[in-house]
Amino acid sequence: MKNIKLTIEYDGTDFLGWQKQSKGRTVQEEIEKALSKILKKDVKINGSGRTDASVHAKGQVANFREAFTIPVERLPVALNSVLPDDIAILSAIEMNYDFHARYNAMGKKYVYKIYNSNIRSPLSRNYVYYVPQDLDIEKMKMATKYFLGTHDFKGFMASGSSVKETVRTIYNLDITEKEKQITVEVSGNGFLYNMVRIITGTLVDVGRGKINLNDLENIIASGDRNRSGHTASAQGLYLYEVYYK
Amino acid sequence: MKNIKLTIEYDGTDFLGWQKQSKGRTVQEEIEKALSKILKKDVKINGSGRTDASVHAKGQVANFREAFTIPVERLPVALNSVLPDDIAILSAIEMNYDFHARYNAMGKKYVYKIYNSNIRSPLSRNYVYYVPQDLDIEKMKMATKYFLGTHDFKGFMASGSSVKETVRTIYNLDITEKEKQITVEVSGNGFLYNMVRIITGTLVDVGRGKINLNDLENIIASGDRNRSGHTASAQGLYLYEVYYK
Repeated sequence: MKNIKLTIEYDGTDFLGWQKQSKGRTVQEEIEKALSKILKKDVKINGSGRTDASVHAKGQVANFREAFTIPVERLPVALNSVLPDDIAILSAIEMNYDFHARYNAMGKKYVYKIYNSNIRSPLSRNYVYYVPQDLDIEKMKMATKYFLGTHDFKGFMASGSSVKETVRTIYNLDITEKEKQITVEVSGNGFLYNMVRIITGTLVDVGRGKINLNDLENIIASGDRNRSGHTASAQGLYLYEVYYK
Repeated sequence: MKNIKLTIEYDGTDFLGWQKQSKGRTVQEEIEKALSKILKKDVKINGSGRTDASVHAKGQVANFREAFTIPVERLPVALNSVLPDDIAILSAIEMNYDFHARYNAMGKKYVYKIYNSNIRSPLSRNYVYYVPQDLDIEKMKMATKYFLGTHDFKGFMASGSSVKETVRTIYNLDITEKEKQITVEVSGNGFLYNMVRIITGTLVDVGRGKINLNDLENIIASGDRNRSGHTASAQGLYLYEVYYK
C-alpha cells in the first residue's frame, strides 16, 4: 500500500469546482476517473480543500492510498495522457502512510489577479477579475497591513457558512502591479469560505474609495459581514500552494 | 460620411477565424452585427487581413465608412456593451475618407507564445503552443538572423496558397524567455499565409535539433516548403499590431 501526494494544476472555467457532486463536472471526479483507469481499480482522493466553480489552481494537493506496481515517478505522464486538457498532474510523490492532504496542511497561498482598465480584455476574461473603475493602488497597499497577523475573520466569511472557529493567521499579503494587471498574493494558516475573495473585494473597495482606510481596523474587529467589502469574482482566484511540514 | 478605424482584441479560441463565412462564428460577423445594432443600419467592415481559427489578436485593425451621429469616442463603450465576451473594441478613431485597413497597412507585428515544459499547462492551453521536448534556446536565437531582411519566403507559405509575389521583408525577429514561456516577436512588411507559424515551427525544429543551424540559409534560399520546419499550432499566435503611415 502506497500513499501518494499529487500536485495539480487546473483551469477552473469549465468545472463546478473541486468537490465531486451528483451532477456536473468536477476536478476531483476527473482525477479519480483517470486514476481508476491507470491503476485499474476504484481510487478515491483527498483534496487539501475545495475550490469553487471557476477558481483555478496552480498547486492544489491531493493524496490517495493504494497498492499498485507502476513506478510512482511515471504516474504524472500516465495520468496526464488520460486526463482532460484542463487538468494536469504536476508531480506525484510517495509519502508516509499517515500523510493526509487536508489534515496535514499547515497553510495555503492564493494569488488573485485583477485587470484594471476602462476596456475589458477578451483574452484574459476567464483568468482575472475585471475592475473598470480607477483604483488608488497606494491606498490598497496601505490597507494590506490591517489584515496581517492573527484576527477573528468572521466578517470575511461568506454568510451562511457554518464554521465556528473563525480565527486565522495571515502571514503575508502583497499587492504588485504591472501595466493593467494587479496581483494580490496572500498566504496564511487557513482561510474561511470566500475569505480571499472578500479580502480582495475589500481591498478593491478601498482602492475605489467605497471603504475608508481609517475604518478598516474597526471593520475587521467588528466581525460584521455587512461592513466588509464585496466578494470579488471567482475567476480571478488561483490556489497556488499548499504548505506541509 | 465618416471613415472609422477600429482597433480590436479577441480571443480566437471559439472562432472559425476573422473572415465571415456562410457557417460558423467569425470575428468579422460579430463586429458587423454589433455595429449594425448600435448604428441601426447594415455595416460592413474591412479587416487588415484574415486570422485563422484559434489565432488571437491584441491589435487587429478594421475600418468602415458610414454616416452616423453617435460621437466617435463613445463607439468602443457602446460596441463593447453588445459584443460577446471574447471580442473588445480597444479604440475607434476617425480617419480620412481614403483610409483602408488592408490596402494602407505598411506592415504587421505578430507575437507567438511557446510553453516549453515536460508537463502541459491547463491554464494556458488555448494561448500557447505546447512543446514538451527540450529546446536549445541559444540556437533558436542564433537562427533568427537568417530570416531578417528581404527574402523570397516561398518555402514559408502554406502549400496550396495561390499568392504569386512571395518576397517579404522582416524588420525584426526576437526570442525572449521567462521560466517555461518562450516568446517570439516578429514584424515585417507583410506575411504569407501561415508564414509566422512556419517560421516559428522552423525555429522550434532548430531548437530541438531537427534542423541544423548551418543548413538554414540554404533552406530559406531553396524556397522549398518540404525543407522548412513544421507549422506551429494556431493557438500560440497573436496579431499584435498593424502599422500604417
